[in-house]
Amino acid sequence: MTDIILYGYGNLGRAMHQALERCADLRLIGICSRRADRLREEAKQIAALWTPEQLWAELPKADVIINCGGSRNDLPHTTPDLARHWCVVDSFDAHAAIPAHCAAVNAAAQAAGTLCIVSAGWDPGLFSLMRVLFSAFLPGGSCCSFWGPGVSQGHSEALRRLPGVADARQYTVPDPAAIRAAARGAAPQPHTQTHRRVCYVVPEKDADIDLLTQTIRTMPDYFAGYEVEVQYISAEELAANHTGLPHGGSVICTDSCDAGTQSAQLQLSLASNPDFTAGILTAAARAAARLHRAGQHGCLTMAEIAPAMYAPDDIASLQKKYM
Amino acid sequence: MTDIILYGYGNLGRAMHQALERCADLRLIGICSRRADRLREEAKQIAALWTPEQLWAELPKADVIINCGGSRNDLPHTTPDLARHWCVVDSFDAHAAIPAHCAAVNAAAQAAGTLCIVSAGWDPGLFSLMRVLFSAFLPGGSCCSFWGPGVSQGHSEALRRLPGVADARQYTVPDPAAIRAAARGAAPQPHTQTHRRVCYVVPEKDADIDLLTQTIRTMPDYFAGYEVEVQYISAEELAANHTGLPHGGSVICTDSCDAGTQSAQLQLSLASNPDFTAGILTAAARAAARLHRAGQHGCLTMAEIAPAMYAPDDIASLQKKYM
Repeated sequence: MTDIILYGYGNLGRAMHQALERCADLRLIGICSRRADRLREEAKQIAALWTPEQLWAELPKADVIINCGGSRNDLPHTTPDLARHWCVVDSFDAHAAIPAHCAAVNAAAQAAGTLCIVSAGWDPGLFSLMRVLFSAFLPGGSCCSFWGPGVSQGHSEALRRLPGVADARQYTVPDPAAIRAAARGAAPQPHTQTHRRVCYVVPEKDADIDLLTQTIRTMPDYFAGYEVEVQYISAEELAANHTGLPHGGSVICTDSCDAGTQSAQLQLSLASNPDFTAGILTAAARAAARLHRAGQHGCLTMAEIAPAMYAPDDIASLQKKYM
Repeated sequence: MTDIILYGYGNLGRAMHQALERCADLRLIGICSRRADRLREEAKQIAALWTPEQLWAELPKADVIINCGGSRNDLPHTTPDLARHWCVVDSFDAHAAIPAHCAAVNAAAQAAGTLCIVSAGWDPGLFSLMRVLFSAFLPGGSCCSFWGPGVSQGHSEALRRLPGVADARQYTVPDPAAIRAAARGAAPQPHTQTHRRVCYVVPEKDADIDLLTQTIRTMPDYFAGYEVEVQYISAEELAANHTGLPHGGSVICTDSCDAGTQSAQLQLSLASNPDFTAGILTAAARAAARLHRAGQHGCLTMAEIAPAMYAPDDIASLQKKYM
């Protein structure tokens, strides 16, 4: 049995709670949340609830802590901190900062003798390992990634931080023609050319709509360079039509050979993004505990972990069931 | 640099030869073939050519031998034999016999201190590891695999072994409706219900066509239970329209969550089956050499190998390029 603590209890933490209930070999032994008191009712089957201060004072035993914090403000410091005492899994998703995050977590984990898996999830995570596999198997080719149609939580959050915005949801929509072209072996295009961004914004009462639209369209890193559609809706409409968190995407790699095009493709179509991410983090927690028991220390990403490590079955059963 | 010997030089061996030329870190140092003499002209850049007898007499040094023999008669004994002296990669594809093959190779490899990777390729191989990954990430769901449209070399060979058959090609054709149903989360159906088998047969002059058709349709393990279409054609037509070896297929796994269906799918569309298989075996040879240098012994399948092991780049480059 592998004992798990959830650190953070937002969308992802809640999905983790459900996901862990489906895994007979993983046991949720407690939740750490700034709102620990308010969780008393909601998470009543859970023996332990801690605030971060209580967790650090008590240092409870656990095989793995799954860090469900946000990439922007939480994970860069909490994952290395936690790694000094526990094996940790996180879903750090700021792609360009992953090497630095990994190095910081590795330093803490090597010193403490813990094993951490960072940037687990579907992108980064499953998509990253597919890009590694496909590129190794089609060494003369190239890979394209597409995201959506689905809700980008990062872009929705960026909209909600703007003055004048009461609430917002951002859908990322890939161009179907670009996906078909990629599968036929067309040269990769920049993401800004192959995706649209559709924003549903609930404005505050006195918001300057024209200024807001202009601010959104030109926001660097998030919207500038993309085709952006901004629709202003009421809080009621947002609540009625935009509460789900569907997502998906694909990694498409092609190469040419004498006979024509070789194409390999991973495709996800997800009714719930947090639920699928939670499924991956659950499996990553299993892998972290297993690798740590086998004596491994430091920080890994999903491309560095054998698929069999994620499965509850042993190798003999996997060979029988899945080969 | 990793030095490679190819053992066998049929369709796959030739594709391996080409694939190795695209990998700067892998060097083909020789080919072992029963027809070594006839290869003198064709493979002139290759320093060494051996018959199997010569190879065993000389025991040349190599980091990895890629065994390009057939699963039916060659690999079950040649891979364990070779494993007593070299690290070996093979593409053994008789699914039900993989655990026994793996055990035999493991015994030889453990005794000799070599590292072997068996059943590499796309199915078994890439498809197997995707079934392991998807099942771990969607633990309440189920997986379906589809093959084709494409030429099954095993089924073509089975046709060619029949008395009265001069030559033959068998196409496996999946039912598009079954693929769509699987992606929507429908319960898995038996392969016999979701695939058609289309046979192009060049009969010998005095063949009894009705008897032959009956024999094909009822052949156990290969055709019995499937919808089978048999077309008799001339040798000229076969040569004109059926010399390519295209293939492909998909692994589709679905699970349900409160919000609906979660679906993950791998899809291959291959102009040349041997070329893609060769790309995977090349990467597996790189992984075998690397794992052996790191001190690992025994027999592994692709589900037991971290994706990063297949790539020519180091971890830092992979994190930058693919995360």
